[in-house]
Amino acid sequence: MSIHHNSAWTALLEHERTSWALAQVAGRLGWDQETTMPRGAAAQRSEEMAAMESVLHARRTDPRLGDWLEAAEAPDAAGAAILRHVRRSYERNTRVPADLAAEIARVTSMAQGIWAEARARDDVAHFLPTLTRVIALRREEAAALAQGGSLYDALLSDYEPGTSGDEVAAMFARMRLRLVALREKVLGSARQPAPLKGEFGQEGQLRLSRTLAEAFGYDFGHGRLDLAVHPFSSGSGADVRITTRVNPADPFNCFYSTVHEVGHACYELGIDPAYHYTPLAEGVSMGVHESQSRIYENQLGRSRAFTGWLHARMEAEFGPLGLDADGFYGAVNRVQPGYIRTEADEVQYNLHIMMRFDLERALIAGDLQASDLEAAWNDRFLRDFGVAVDRPSNGMLQDVHWSVGLFGYFPTYALGNVYAGCLMKALRADLPDIDEALAQGRPTVATAWLRDKVQQHGGLFEPRETIARACGFAPTEGPLLDYLEAKFGALYDL
Amino acid sequence: MSIHHNSAWTALLEHERTSWALAQVAGRLGWDQETTMPRGAAAQRSEEMAAMESVLHARRTDPRLGDWLEAAEAPDAAGAAILRHVRRSYERNTRVPADLAAEIARVTSMAQGIWAEARARDDVAHFLPTLTRVIALRREEAAALAQGGSLYDALLSDYEPGTSGDEVAAMFARMRLRLVALREKVLGSARQPAPLKGEFGQEGQLRLSRTLAEAFGYDFGHGRLDLAVHPFSSGSGADVRITTRVNPADPFNCFYSTVHEVGHACYELGIDPAYHYTPLAEGVSMGVHESQSRIYENQLGRSRAFTGWLHARMEAEFGPLGLDADGFYGAVNRVQPGYIRTEADEVQYNLHIMMRFDLERALIAGDLQASDLEAAWNDRFLRDFGVAVDRPSNGMLQDVHWSVGLFGYFPTYALGNVYAGCLMKALRADLPDIDEALAQGRPTVATAWLRDKVQQHGGLFEPRETIARACGFAPTEGPLLDYLEAKFGALYDL
Repeated sequence: MSIHHNSAWTALLEHERTSWALAQVAGRLGWDQETTMPRGAAAQRSEEMAAMESVLHARRTDPRLGDWLEAAEAPDAAGAAILRHVRRSYERNTRVPADLAAEIARVTSMAQGIWAEARARDDVAHFLPTLTRVIALRREEAAALAQGGSLYDALLSDYEPGTSGDEVAAMFARMRLRLVALREKVLGSARQPAPLKGEFGQEGQLRLSRTLAEAFGYDFGHGRLDLAVHPFSSGSGADVRITTRVNPADPFNCFYSTVHEVGHACYELGIDPAYHYTPLAEGVSMGVHESQSRIYENQLGRSRAFTGWLHARMEAEFGPLGLDADGFYGAVNRVQPGYIRTEADEVQYNLHIMMRFDLERALIAGDLQASDLEAAWNDRFLRDFGVAVDRPSNGMLQDVHWSVGLFGYFPTYALGNVYAGCLMKALRADLPDIDEALAQGRPTVATAWLRDKVQQHGGLFEPRETIARACGFAPTEGPLLDYLEAKFGALYDL
Repeated sequence: MSIHHNSAWTALLEHERTSWALAQVAGRLGWDQETTMPRGAAAQRSEEMAAMESVLHARRTDPRLGDWLEAAEAPDAAGAAILRHVRRSYERNTRVPADLAAEIARVTSMAQGIWAEARARDDVAHFLPTLTRVIALRREEAAALAQGGSLYDALLSDYEPGTSGDEVAAMFARMRLRLVALREKVLGSARQPAPLKGEFGQEGQLRLSRTLAEAFGYDFGHGRLDLAVHPFSSGSGADVRITTRVNPADPFNCFYSTVHEVGHACYELGIDPAYHYTPLAEGVSMGVHESQSRIYENQLGRSRAFTGWLHARMEAEFGPLGLDADGFYGAVNRVQPGYIRTEADEVQYNLHIMMRFDLERALIAGDLQASDLEAAWNDRFLRDFGVAVDRPSNGMLQDVHWSVGLFGYFPTYALGNVYAGCLMKALRADLPDIDEALAQGRPTVATAWLRDKVQQHGGLFEPRETIARACGFAPTEGPLLDYLEAKFGALYDL
């Protein structure tokens, strides 16, 4: 018997090994497309991506996987986790009819272009038929996946397995009150930090970006830094690349995009190499992934201690900035009214997420129709932000996510922030001298702690368990809110 | 019946479409590896390449292909050519036992490293056991492919289908006498052009490389130019990238590497888009491919007319060169004694190829043992070049090809030169004003002719037929030798 079981286990591992390598190849195509691909290659690239996707889909639904999953015995805890991931993927991919999957791929690939046109023209009506179709298809998919359970949870579990929409909703409701209150106090404060002014050349921004990446422990022997319109990190295992962007008037955009992507990349690069070529060798969920990018970017990168070091580095690169270190800290952490999620600061960011979460949950539940979305969006925005949306591109048309069918994805951004708040609390308890290290430009101390506590485990534990084990307590919104109130309370003299 | 046939044809086309796209992806991985990949990703990249290779191999040997090939009826000449390519690939890939193919892949991937060590240490003995093993494996593969025919021809037909070793040998024997004689006269001439002297910065070399690429009609909307240790071109269809290298003391290396790769790339980009996603959408053989790179590099790029234009461009970029246009032409075309094939000029290059061809043919036939190769190499080199090889890295260890199992590949370089000679003769007859266009920096006139006569057809015709149709006569060595004797006779005052 055990020989039979072992052979199923070995066959499954071998299958996953090749699938993992092929998934890396597909990911690299995406990287190439956003960084180096010639413009005229776009149509061919779509075919190449589709070919890779068909190969991967066939492997994920290979009927032999079903047999192997029945017969395989995991030799240890890591093996059990591998089986859990493979089983989840196999069930997920075999439950959705091939016709439906193909139709979703077809519609969402066109939908992105239509959304971009609609946003450029501020024309909601142009987008509505497509959005309606995408929602209908994703609801159909969710029904196939949920098998009688919650539709939204079925979609959410693609990005954050083990977390329900109800749990998220309860937590967000608690967070919302404190965040709306904090936002109002901050914006109403008599003390308002001045912005950084000036023009900062591309070469200098990229040079300092590399310095920042290295300071956080990003290994250029296993990665590289390139320019992209929308910064991202890409890859797992031994090849994890990051991108950033340059706006001469806003170097913080470049630097904190870099640090954010370094967080994602350090997670992937920090996974135990013993897990490479298995499903454990990638971040365990979008929420945990975002916890790494956010703690690098915000709790560490935007701290008073680290911005003091960055202030000196920037003056060395660009000359006097016209701000002392305290003023620089204020400029980095300025809170400003605004419509756009991707430009939001730490105080307001989660409020943007929460409204999207509530709206998309209602859309998937069938309680809100696409035709009523604009009114619902604008109403909610007015309530949380105290400002009326002036045009759809500043409102419901601002994000690409829904056009490409990403429902259940938005809450992982806020979950990442919550997890980052928990991790920072635990990190400070373990490393009481962290501010001194940050002030000296040594956030690698934090990277080492995060690698040990979170990153090395990859997909070994479930997402919430990953954070709970690292922190010594179950993840909750309290530490993040405490941190935000303390930080912005001090900065805005509340 | 016809519905049945049509469905086989449609299924085969669909299968090939995906295979073609996947082959592009695999090729892009190779490009990435040589241009942008982080060093530390090498081991993982091997796994990724192997995974892609296993997917492609499974598709090339898919038993359904055998059924489709039996039932499919091609709708037209292009369809018939597609079936010819698919049949050749299917037979080739199904004849070689999987175990043998895997063993060849394993041994040759290690052999390259051992060869590199041996070359660095000038240590033939370190390489001999590996070379012996590679030859034995490739002979075994050739036996499986040849099915009683010539072993060498079976290998040659991977790179140059439709050409036999005997035909090549007869042609090379005729060429050798005239080339050895020309070489002796040139090197013995009292008139010897002076070399170009100076240091030329990387930025200027790359800028002029781009100008050159554009002058020849390379479309940066479907390609890009990057640096690589060994220049190459990569890709088919709508995404064909080139690379070059920069040596500050030798800008011609950069410029003519660029022009050479532009020739390869223009061939791929020139193929009729109607053939994209089929086996017709890539150069039909290595020899025909090399004919394009060589005619761009040599007959066009190193002509008196075009070097006159390049001379002016170089002086505009770098300042006075200390050579007038005639002296510059001489410097570009200088013939110097040397051991190394890749550094050889137009007069000597084919002599390097011919000796490799004779030696590898004897190795594959079993008439020469690896242990006797060094002596045979050095003897032949002394006879053709009049110089004794001073060390193995200047002799039999100089090229990577044999270590990675490339037997039957070398002659395609010389075939390419022969084809280029034929094409240039036909091009001059069709375009009597070509020198005027070249002198004005408009080699696009030649690119248009080559696109019409050769490039657009891709894999539609067999290799020799491709050249014969373009030229209006069967390819032969005469035009190349006439061209070389005329060009170097004038330059060296013979």
